[in-house]
Amino acid sequence: MLPLPALLRALTSGELSPTDHVDDVLARLERDETGCVITLDADRARERAAELTASAARGERMGPLHGVAVGIKDLIDVAGLPTRCGSRLLADAPPAAADAAVVALLRAAGAVVVGKLHTHEFAYGPVGDTAATGPCRNPHDLSRITGGSSSGSAAAVAAGHLPLAVGTDTGASVRTPAALCGVAGLKPRRGAIPGAGVFPLAESFDTVGLLATDAASLAVARAALGGPGPANPGAVRVGIAGGGWWRPHEPVLADAVRTAADALAGLDHTVSEVDTPGVAELAATYPVITGAEAYATHRDWYATRRDEYQTATAQRLAPHAEAPAHTYVDARRARRRLASALVEHLRGRADVLVCPTTRLRATPIGADTVPTPAGDVAVRPSLLETTSPFNLTDLPVVALPVPVPGLPAGIQLVGVTVGEAELLGLAGALERALR
Amino acid sequence: MLPLPALLRALTSGELSPTDHVDDVLARLERDETGCVITLDADRARERAAELTASAARGERMGPLHGVAVGIKDLIDVAGLPTRCGSRLLADAPPAAADAAVVALLRAAGAVVVGKLHTHEFAYGPVGDTAATGPCRNPHDLSRITGGSSSGSAAAVAAGHLPLAVGTDTGASVRTPAALCGVAGLKPRRGAIPGAGVFPLAESFDTVGLLATDAASLAVARAALGGPGPANPGAVRVGIAGGGWWRPHEPVLADAVRTAADALAGLDHTVSEVDTPGVAELAATYPVITGAEAYATHRDWYATRRDEYQTATAQRLAPHAEAPAHTYVDARRARRRLASALVEHLRGRADVLVCPTTRLRATPIGADTVPTPAGDVAVRPSLLETTSPFNLTDLPVVALPVPVPGLPAGIQLVGVTVGEAELLGLAGALERALR
Repeated sequence: MLPLPALLRALTSGELSPTDHVDDVLARLERDETGCVITLDADRARERAAELTASAARGERMGPLHGVAVGIKDLIDVAGLPTRCGSRLLADAPPAAADAAVVALLRAAGAVVVGKLHTHEFAYGPVGDTAATGPCRNPHDLSRITGGSSSGSAAAVAAGHLPLAVGTDTGASVRTPAALCGVAGLKPRRGAIPGAGVFPLAESFDTVGLLATDAASLAVARAALGGPGPANPGAVRVGIAGGGWWRPHEPVLADAVRTAADALAGLDHTVSEVDTPGVAELAATYPVITGAEAYATHRDWYATRRDEYQTATAQRLAPHAEAPAHTYVDARRARRRLASALVEHLRGRADVLVCPTTRLRATPIGADTVPTPAGDVAVRPSLLETTSPFNLTDLPVVALPVPVPGLPAGIQLVGVTVGEAELLGLAGALERALR
Repeated sequence: MLPLPALLRALTSGELSPTDHVDDVLARLERDETGCVITLDADRARERAAELTASAARGERMGPLHGVAVGIKDLIDVAGLPTRCGSRLLADAPPAAADAAVVALLRAAGAVVVGKLHTHEFAYGPVGDTAATGPCRNPHDLSRITGGSSSGSAAAVAAGHLPLAVGTDTGASVRTPAALCGVAGLKPRRGAIPGAGVFPLAESFDTVGLLATDAASLAVARAALGGPGPANPGAVRVGIAGGGWWRPHEPVLADAVRTAADALAGLDHTVSEVDTPGVAELAATYPVITGAEAYATHRDWYATRRDEYQTATAQRLAPHAEAPAHTYVDARRARRRLASALVEHLRGRADVLVCPTTRLRATPIGADTVPTPAGDVAVRPSLLETTSPFNLTDLPVVALPVPVPGLPAGIQLVGVTVGEAELLGLAGALERALR
């Protein structure tokens, strides 16, 4: 699949019609081997593509994404399709009455919604292996996980099925699957892309984000959703996150960070190591806050239909039945205090923070732990603890693949003093330098 | 005590010196019979008054409150004085190292801090009868409560000791004692007056507010704290809160609302009854949210020094030890949903809402229930449930006394579409009309 800028040039020049593009996308999705497709909306997509092809022929463009096929994580409402959230509990969900806000914005920009994509059940996990339809498989190695919870969005883009997919990110869920599948992901600040019509995981952190082949594509898509276009940040202070928290379990992931740091230094940015005081304590508040909020949402189903959850989901919900309110209040207070202190510390030292997206690359499906030279390590925290700090601090992040041998590796570019626009500009320059 | 505008005229003209005024205030506070005084800062107050008297003689004014004596609720830090929060647990509290933000602002405006005033223990109650030093007594009848938790602030102003006092309002705590003591109170939006240096009750709602003899005084004090001066709102839609929630247990309190409504109609405002859908459900979220947050603050003391709390405080904390996190999350969600819906409903119908401040006037100290023609009614909810909805909706409120026979009665003017400035302007016009 062409990156979005090139695809849009082809669609705009008439070299490629919306109909040809959407037919191609639908054919790829029908042949998919990853399990990323949950519901295809083929008839409506072809119909819309035909309208857009006709209007393009009259020289009329609906918007900046005229004719671009897009897939939607099945946690997000698309009018006329069920929102099943990867769960047997919603196997018989009725068609959604209305588009979620982000879907409406995409349609208004001329995008063609082709269907719903795999999610880790109720978005409650960074793995992508837990869903009513089974695991989503990594296009780079079908025996391995995609990461989650926007598993299908990452797999569909990585497999070349789609130029753009919508995901959500509560603690990891855009960036971790982007990293494990080798695509780019944008986690904006919470609320920057509107969240109406998205099934909640944890309201303190739920964020709508985007996945695409590269940062240049993310920049085009973000601008089409009413966000800022990419901006040149000028020479910035790049901080490389230092300390044990950020040390990956696979050396190749540290290599990826170093590669990015060298490329950024070559682009005349100042690069230095920065520490992140309190990050472990900050990250420890995440499961407490998220668990309480998720349990409150699921309580009634959990009481009456527990067997219909996937086992892993039921096990994650269970401890939150009895968790006391004052512990949740404590976690919220600690989060606020530690996040403010960390952001203030970082602002004094860096405009952009660079760190690995995950501590492991894609692991075998079904493995809760994996062996490393330093001993067995748990998969789930390795896919969450390096991403959740930026939900806790609510900083914008672009997750970017960095070329390494073998399975994909990803880094995060975190906007400390810069916003999405500068971050997307910097990420675009970095990926050009890395090519 | 003169209302603040007249007092300031006397201080500015030289008719009254800061020293004479502060000496008068200190003499009154030393003779006090209500129990409103916790700590007098007489020496420093006299010293400061002498400085301000000298600078006034040179024609120099420190600020808009030059020489005005002010008392501070003993939940709020004053540098050099202990903050005891009405509790035996803080009997040996060290002197506060720094002034709370509101105290620093008052001093910068030229006010003279004379001491610390009675608070319901840890501000956790709308009664004012629960504190290490015993109950605070109503100046209008020393056998009756003041309301709380800013009990001492209301009593000191009502007794004529002070022209101005600072309080806090989490669910009732400025407005209820203002109503029961017959003075005026301002509960701004949360954070409008900075809250640093105030012992927390519940961070979702804690608000710093002011008490003074009348709305005209509040307007002067608020402007001196960097807020808007009073503004003329023009002709507004006045909504009288209708329905059983707002029906007081004493008919004279309904009379007070009618008196205010007639006066507002006489000022050419449009007056009509408006309903408040969902207010009972909204108010029910208040004790759940406040209790969890208060318990989290007090947990360690409650575990190790329970006996040192006043019995009523320990009893209020107890049920929150085991309250589950998901119930708190539910209450927060319900609060957000119901408050938004209520505000939206009101905005369509009224610019200012008028309702009683409390359902009872000052009750006898020690009475948990009081007899009414319709049977016994509980005191505490009667002093809280008509005020907490405006913490839950975070609307600004001016609580105003309305002349009635016997004990004082108060009404609330709630800013629905108008802000503090217009609300203070309207309250000032109303109190002039009521005279």
